[in-house]
Amino acid sequence: MVYDFNTKIENDHLIIGDIDANDLAKEYGTPLYVIDEEKIRDNYNKLYTAFSSKYPDLHMCYAAKANTSLAVMKVLESEGSYIDAVSPGEIYTALLAGYSPDRIVFTGNNVTTEELEYANETGVTINLDSISALERLSTIENTKGKEISFRVNPMVEAGHHEHCITGGPKSKFGIKEDEAVEVYQRAIDLGFKPIGMHSHIGSEILESEPFMLAVETMMDIAGKVHQEIGVDFKFLDFGGGFGIPYEPEEEELDLETFTSDIIALYKSKLEEYDMGSPSMYIEPGRFLVGNSEVLLTRVNTIKQSYRKFAGVDCGFNTLLRPTMYGSYHHIVVANRMNDEPVEKIDVAGNVCESGDLFARDRLMPELEEGDLLAILNAGAYAYTMASQYNSRPRPAEVMVNKEEVDVIRRRESFSDLFNGQHVPTRLLK
Amino acid sequence: MVYDFNTKIENDHLIIGDIDANDLAKEYGTPLYVIDEEKIRDNYNKLYTAFSSKYPDLHMCYAAKANTSLAVMKVLESEGSYIDAVSPGEIYTALLAGYSPDRIVFTGNNVTTEELEYANETGVTINLDSISALERLSTIENTKGKEISFRVNPMVEAGHHEHCITGGPKSKFGIKEDEAVEVYQRAIDLGFKPIGMHSHIGSEILESEPFMLAVETMMDIAGKVHQEIGVDFKFLDFGGGFGIPYEPEEEELDLETFTSDIIALYKSKLEEYDMGSPSMYIEPGRFLVGNSEVLLTRVNTIKQSYRKFAGVDCGFNTLLRPTMYGSYHHIVVANRMNDEPVEKIDVAGNVCESGDLFARDRLMPELEEGDLLAILNAGAYAYTMASQYNSRPRPAEVMVNKEEVDVIRRRESFSDLFNGQHVPTRLLK
Repeated sequence: MVYDFNTKIENDHLIIGDIDANDLAKEYGTPLYVIDEEKIRDNYNKLYTAFSSKYPDLHMCYAAKANTSLAVMKVLESEGSYIDAVSPGEIYTALLAGYSPDRIVFTGNNVTTEELEYANETGVTINLDSISALERLSTIENTKGKEISFRVNPMVEAGHHEHCITGGPKSKFGIKEDEAVEVYQRAIDLGFKPIGMHSHIGSEILESEPFMLAVETMMDIAGKVHQEIGVDFKFLDFGGGFGIPYEPEEEELDLETFTSDIIALYKSKLEEYDMGSPSMYIEPGRFLVGNSEVLLTRVNTIKQSYRKFAGVDCGFNTLLRPTMYGSYHHIVVANRMNDEPVEKIDVAGNVCESGDLFARDRLMPELEEGDLLAILNAGAYAYTMASQYNSRPRPAEVMVNKEEVDVIRRRESFSDLFNGQHVPTRLLK
Repeated sequence: MVYDFNTKIENDHLIIGDIDANDLAKEYGTPLYVIDEEKIRDNYNKLYTAFSSKYPDLHMCYAAKANTSLAVMKVLESEGSYIDAVSPGEIYTALLAGYSPDRIVFTGNNVTTEELEYANETGVTINLDSISALERLSTIENTKGKEISFRVNPMVEAGHHEHCITGGPKSKFGIKEDEAVEVYQRAIDLGFKPIGMHSHIGSEILESEPFMLAVETMMDIAGKVHQEIGVDFKFLDFGGGFGIPYEPEEEELDLETFTSDIIALYKSKLEEYDMGSPSMYIEPGRFLVGNSEVLLTRVNTIKQSYRKFAGVDCGFNTLLRPTMYGSYHHIVVANRMNDEPVEKIDVAGNVCESGDLFARDRLMPELEEGDLLAILNAGAYAYTMASQYNSRPRPAEVMVNKEEVDVIRRRESFSDLFNGQHVPTRLLK
């Protein structure tokens, strides 16, 4: 059956936590993001256990950009998560959610000096992405002796694996592999204490191979830096990229094999370079929150044009991934979960652009106006990328815990479109 | 010279209105959207004159989704513009900006019944996009005798012209060409008074041909509806799509030829079908505001990685078009406008995604940290599509009129990231 993917069904209805999705839609309106607290906790613990059972000195830095709802941050804080922050706003959000600065790693890209100053003041771990940032950090007061880290760009051969997209020769991220020793030496010369190294190779990795390659490459770089100039690493951070299945046919990451392979490699490389036993950091984002959330949207229009369309009450302003990246999101009919798929249809949003489609030629049950659709796996890179394009206020988000429901983002109203707007008086005369 | 594209230069600096862009960046910070009021007015009058000199009963409905800043709406209101609104939020914005309902045409896509009710209450012209919307509008109280219009999807052959993307067989928009008569008849049977027809074929049209084809096709459909069931059209709306040059090599739309061709065709078709002289509506968006605005952003990082990068202080959360559509935006160095281009470089944003680039392999002067870049033609589909992704507050927008400057959108702060957010109390215990 196509529609048992990642869902719970009762009385033909989709259930989230212990609540009927149709009741949620009725009470809170649509479009509505619904996140399941327990799933976040389960995901966290599943991944944490798989790694830490094999290497206890492990910290999971939640890649906050996936979903920065304060309530979500708070849930992961209570689980003991660290934070991977990519901007001052994410540092601020993490602090507000109760993370102590030592649990926050700031990895910016193209950061301004003011942003470095802000990060320095907050006391978070700073992971530098460029020589420019190093030089500019050194000009900031009270940074002598500061512990820092660098993001490296492992020169994984282009095209070796399609996932290696944030590393490699075209990437804007990190310092070059072959200048790592020089850069760490420069950091020491400037009075810093380098204690970490970081890399991140891409996203949606569902098998060991590309990640293993990244670990191996980074360990060789770290080993060289350790052996040649005596840097003692307190942590090594391998970034994120742990994928989740979006399509029903995709298989989950085999966590047991994946973590066994990686930890074995990590340990052998630590031994090879005599590096002791630094903390291992990983930065899961999507893996923790991706499948914990759905986007509920109601069909308002069935249109038989030259193709058949089901038109819904949100668009790419609400969930950008299908239009921007061509991403697949599975869609179920929350009020008729057991109906068999019978026809191919386009599921279209309400934005005035031809690319505003959630699915093209998707095999679905025969849809009717009034049906409630649930777009699955809408927990990562979803609400965080929402805009008010087409002057559409952003939707509400509720968090479910078994039978409890809390609004964690109220539905915006028209007035939110005008926050901070001002009309020059000369235009009002 | 590459860099005299669409800009004014004084003392080697970029001038907007009568103000040095560098002074604006210093006073208001970066990233900063800067819109030039006079350019909007000039664009409006140029296009209006070109059309109305040949067919006086012309109304330009500004496609508000291009730029819904209230100040911009107000400027165009004062010029006499009508509004093309695609959502209730745009209707509301237009009303707030002082447009009377009779100057607002609402063309939604996949609209809910509640949205139709809202539009009906406001008294704007409703342009229906589907049979479903017609049937649902008829169930709303006080709609008997209401004047309505339909968006049609002219069956322009797929691939006939690359611009024909919002018409044609794959499009979610409009009612089918071959059911137009039936749908207008149904509207009459339901007690409505159909008085308009609308089509829109795409965007960034820089030559007459595709638009002529659309006008011809729609006029044939309207002619048929008029002759077969006696619908008297008060207006015919040909949508927008009037392009602007983004690349220095592109030529402006030849307005004189373009409007002469179209009006001649319009008149001949009106005569052919004996349709009298209905108002002609067009819906320019990009043409009115696209080249009136720049995005100022400062280089903070020069990085020589496997490629050379200039990193700036905004990203695709600020201006989505290059990353989402692969759109070209010309970039000039606002503090050294006369420097010759000497090398190819990638201009990279500060978002933590590999696709976050404003330009790849762009021929530029040798860039330095601290340089102020101006990303040109950032007036349309720019701020309206901005998000807070990566927890980055949205930038400020100022409007310039000669030597006057007004902040029309204040710079967001961290607090704006938490508008309407709520943490369930159970998570705070």
